[in-house]
Amino acid sequence: MLIAITDPDDLQIEAYRVVRERDLLGRQHRFIAEGEVVLRVLLQQPRFEVESLLLSESRVESLGDLIGLLSPGTPVYIANRQVMDAIVGFPIHRGILAVAKSPVLPPVDVLLASLPEEALVVGMIGLANHDNVGGIFRNAAAFGVNAVLLDQETCDPLYRKAIRVSVGGALVVPFTRAPSVDALVHALTEASFEVIALSPSGEETLSKVQPSRRTALLLGAEGPGLPQDLLARTRTVSIPMSGGFDSLNVATSSGIALHHLTQGNNG
Amino acid sequence: MLIAITDPDDLQIEAYRVVRERDLLGRQHRFIAEGEVVLRVLLQQPRFEVESLLLSESRVESLGDLIGLLSPGTPVYIANRQVMDAIVGFPIHRGILAVAKSPVLPPVDVLLASLPEEALVVGMIGLANHDNVGGIFRNAAAFGVNAVLLDQETCDPLYRKAIRVSVGGALVVPFTRAPSVDALVHALTEASFEVIALSPSGEETLSKVQPSRRTALLLGAEGPGLPQDLLARTRTVSIPMSGGFDSLNVATSSGIALHHLTQGNNG
Repeated sequence: MLIAITDPDDLQIEAYRVVRERDLLGRQHRFIAEGEVVLRVLLQQPRFEVESLLLSESRVESLGDLIGLLSPGTPVYIANRQVMDAIVGFPIHRGILAVAKSPVLPPVDVLLASLPEEALVVGMIGLANHDNVGGIFRNAAAFGVNAVLLDQETCDPLYRKAIRVSVGGALVVPFTRAPSVDALVHALTEASFEVIALSPSGEETLSKVQPSRRTALLLGAEGPGLPQDLLARTRTVSIPMSGGFDSLNVATSSGIALHHLTQGNNG
Repeated sequence: MLIAITDPDDLQIEAYRVVRERDLLGRQHRFIAEGEVVLRVLLQQPRFEVESLLLSESRVESLGDLIGLLSPGTPVYIANRQVMDAIVGFPIHRGILAVAKSPVLPPVDVLLASLPEEALVVGMIGLANHDNVGGIFRNAAAFGVNAVLLDQETCDPLYRKAIRVSVGGALVVPFTRAPSVDALVHALTEASFEVIALSPSGEETLSKVQPSRRTALLLGAEGPGLPQDLLARTRTVSIPMSGGFDSLNVATSSGIALHHLTQGNNG
């Protein structure tokens, strides 16, 4: 259903107004996805309900097939570039935005119970940087991770920028949030996951690690890293680095570890 | 030599004025490094000559040991936060900047001839994104890469943002620029390097690759990738990905490949 918008203050497109400020305030169980690549990923995921699209009129023709993937009756608002930028509050170079409903997150044990017998899970602890969370989801999708668990401090993977950096990976890999780090680790252990904590101070070398049938990889923020009491009671693994150089970026580390766990010549 | 600056237009600190515009225009064989971590790396590298420092006065005391590492007589300009921000043109949260001389880049064959018998080199082709170039240098430093070769299209690793993203790695790993992609590959072959091109369409799987005593890893930009004619005449290697998902970020891919080539259980 195409609807022309000529007034940036039109109440129909309220959900798209001043995107950046709303990013910070939250959207009451909605999220914004931007760009054609991310939108195509979003529309392939049945667990998300797309409420509407906002398109630059110059893109309507080239995105016709994408519009065809929407549920019948979903509003597609069309505006010229000037009106669109005025609505959003900054230039939207990609010319395409969607508002979708945030899914209700399942309890951790329910999500874990839904996974196959052989499974790989990533746990994020205290990751407050959207670039890193997005980058880890991109890697998780690339290496077929079955689920991601977040602690309370890790930021929202459905934040606009995290989705963009993940190139849609945040929409692909199922995730949920645990009430505490302890609850997160406890649920993994109960579900027969071997928990591996990646840390520069880890005792084992990554390249020697053989994954179990169910493996969970825990990642902490650069700088503080994973909490000491967590490291004290899990299997810890490091990626040795040259000449005492500063540690790798956490998203890069996740890519290295996931590659090794899924494709390494573990022997 | 501490010199107080109270006037943002003081000619002594001309090199620090309007940093972002200068980033784009270039600095006539000089570069800017920012932040304590990067400055400490810079001062450990004898091939760089630091011409001066600009410090926020609130940081003078805590950075006393760093100032002590400078060559005698090197000017250390001190300004309050307000003057410093006015000089630079935006808020310098880290409160510390340096101007250093760009090194004269050696010819490719000279750099390669200086490397040990066992060596690992990274070649960057068409990488115009400073975040990616910085991220690859960070990984190159972490995995002890001996040298980096750049083609003409790859951006300057000594651009301020690339240095920052590299966490100083761009100052650690020696690099130079080749006159053309052909010249780059030719010099590697002449120096007995086995050239491996990383590409989503690569014929071999990374995890099966055994590095030679001298290995060069070529990386291309996300999207276009490495030129077809280059792929046609080199050994090509891919990182298999799940469900046709979009390729990994090139900096992450470099980390995965360097980890495998230096620490993988290759057998």
